[in-house]
Amino acid sequence: MPHGSDLPLAMLLIFGTAKLFSEVFEYFRQPGIVGEILAGILIGPSVLGWVQPNELILAFAELGVMFLLFRVGLEVKASEFMKVGASAALVAVLGVIVPLGAGWLIARAWQLSQIESIFVGAAMVATSVGITAQVLAARGVLHARASRVILAAAVIDDVLGLIVLAIASSMAQGEMNVFAVALTGALAIGFTILVARWGTKAMSAIVPRLEHRLSAAEGQFAVAITLLFGLSLLAVYAGVAAIIGAFLAGMALAETVGHRVHDLTNGVCELFVPFFLVGIGLRFDLSAFANASTFMFAVVILIAAVASKLIGCGLGAIRSGKADALRIGIGMIPRGEVGMVVAQIGLAMAVISESLFGVVVFMSVMTTIIAPPLLNWAYRDVKALEAGGEQKYRIG
Amino acid sequence: MPHGSDLPLAMLLIFGTAKLFSEVFEYFRQPGIVGEILAGILIGPSVLGWVQPNELILAFAELGVMFLLFRVGLEVKASEFMKVGASAALVAVLGVIVPLGAGWLIARAWQLSQIESIFVGAAMVATSVGITAQVLAARGVLHARASRVILAAAVIDDVLGLIVLAIASSMAQGEMNVFAVALTGALAIGFTILVARWGTKAMSAIVPRLEHRLSAAEGQFAVAITLLFGLSLLAVYAGVAAIIGAFLAGMALAETVGHRVHDLTNGVCELFVPFFLVGIGLRFDLSAFANASTFMFAVVILIAAVASKLIGCGLGAIRSGKADALRIGIGMIPRGEVGMVVAQIGLAMAVISESLFGVVVFMSVMTTIIAPPLLNWAYRDVKALEAGGEQKYRIG
Repeated sequence: MPHGSDLPLAMLLIFGTAKLFSEVFEYFRQPGIVGEILAGILIGPSVLGWVQPNELILAFAELGVMFLLFRVGLEVKASEFMKVGASAALVAVLGVIVPLGAGWLIARAWQLSQIESIFVGAAMVATSVGITAQVLAARGVLHARASRVILAAAVIDDVLGLIVLAIASSMAQGEMNVFAVALTGALAIGFTILVARWGTKAMSAIVPRLEHRLSAAEGQFAVAITLLFGLSLLAVYAGVAAIIGAFLAGMALAETVGHRVHDLTNGVCELFVPFFLVGIGLRFDLSAFANASTFMFAVVILIAAVASKLIGCGLGAIRSGKADALRIGIGMIPRGEVGMVVAQIGLAMAVISESLFGVVVFMSVMTTIIAPPLLNWAYRDVKALEAGGEQKYRIG
Repeated sequence: MPHGSDLPLAMLLIFGTAKLFSEVFEYFRQPGIVGEILAGILIGPSVLGWVQPNELILAFAELGVMFLLFRVGLEVKASEFMKVGASAALVAVLGVIVPLGAGWLIARAWQLSQIESIFVGAAMVATSVGITAQVLAARGVLHARASRVILAAAVIDDVLGLIVLAIASSMAQGEMNVFAVALTGALAIGFTILVARWGTKAMSAIVPRLEHRLSAAEGQFAVAITLLFGLSLLAVYAGVAAIIGAFLAGMALAETVGHRVHDLTNGVCELFVPFFLVGIGLRFDLSAFANASTFMFAVVILIAAVASKLIGCGLGAIRSGKADALRIGIGMIPRGEVGMVVAQIGLAMAVISESLFGVVVFMSVMTTIIAPPLLNWAYRDVKALEAGGEQKYRIG
């Protein structure tokens, strides 16, 4: 291949295939987002092998999900978000306990070791909010009460997932460091509450003054992007995912920035969100199909992963009415990249096997594919509230 | 550093520093673009060493310059572009011959070997059109006749530069393969003329029909981006730079796509063009300062690089009047990343030394820093033609 062809070739293959599949799915009135994940499975190592997930593609995928959450944050007012805090906390807590317990129980019943079973449970805990957020934004229903509960619960869920993972890792190392785990939790909770509670106020004070003095064009976007990366970095240092920081950055700016920042953010999203979706598909792993027993286990874990979030989160939200409880339960189903990260840590610590890793990846990808059509169905009666939401956000 | 902090940290450091420097420069009424290159020098290996140019950053830089040229292409009608073809060809040819001759002569006078001297000349040939395009777009003067000549001449220049490099590489390998060089040239010329001549017509026929049938949102942007990467890839296969394909893709779509595609493209540009500019600075190399004699040589080469484009391109454009000839001469000065690529090839073929490599990089970076203020001065009397050009394009 001639020098310099790598980047345009990778971009063309991934972006082009994703958009083609999305188009075919939308044509048949299926969620384009699922088409893009399947495009990743198709061109990835498990089927055609045209694209290997390398550092560059994973970085584009990470940028995609960061900007996706940033864009969602820009639509969410912190005050609205805090209002559903109590409901969301209950959803998050039950949505952690039930999958953790279910995963552990099933794995133990399948005669896996104690530590392996805990990792299976931990991998089933964390919701990948990117998928759900994209579907809700595409329908223009981000402002519906159930949607706000899902977003808030997903943030709390990420913090709880971090604590569960910290405990699981401690146990895998054979010593339970209660102080370290408590510190991890406190830092993550402190960061999240601090930014969610005071971020909007701070940005409302800072951005207009700063903007007033800026000489360069598109200064507001530059400030917004700097905050996005800054809070993403702080989030990682605080122990939570970078995308939580990106979401909080968006939310902090929601009441300050103008339409232009939305437009420019959309440009980055349109380019890179396909890499996030394809990236999930690329990591699909055939080792879950290695033999009948593993495959059976994978299917059982998948069913448990779906049912446990439905039941746990649905129960947590039951006081919002049955319809909303169902929406919230479904919205928390996708595990996406988060489940895989937990499994990867387990693999790196040599406490879970390759085939168990394949099972978790299978569960993560499949929950991500199952959720969008279910979510569209559950929201079929919710009217789009955002002006032009449909047009603005449906991804291709 | 915690897991997952690399990407947000690199993004924050590079984007944040670039925008800070741009702001300071704009505040003092200097070109922000120069500030961003200097930011790269500062945080790069030659001064603070905070950031090393790695695969990821260089990929972001390449994306940045690809989208920059794509955006410029979107502003340029192919018909307008072809109209200045003859003038541009003369500018390009003289703009290749004079620097090549000057570089070779000076290097020979400095007692460098024949092949080293040819590589010095070859590295002085190719204009980095990204810098000039950014300055012209920022002033809203892309449609001025001189600007169109610069853009067309830069495209032809890239093709001629390719042929010069092919000849130089042949000679370095000790055998001059005339057939291969001719084939290289024919392929590059054929591709460029084909797309420039019939691209607009093809896209005017295809895009509206395609769009009519698309079910997914933002379908026009998806089609545009696919064309962008597709033509960039073809350009690389045809032997010219990916950015030439990106520019031609934009030009082919200039009369077809709507305002929305411009907005979304701007978002990607705002995020990634700083990486292109910082990327140039990051590659700045202190080895040109190794000793007094090398530094003297670097300064002489720099002066020759500036003067030879001014004289060569200016002479080629003299029939357009002195003012336009000066604008065109200055517009062709920046060598940017293109000069460095030639030097890198020479280094990889072991025909030029590390210190000579440093000299070429010094010349490439310095011409890029010198050109924007000169260009702003030369265009001081040209009125912005594009509606809102200033606001739309000035980069921060």
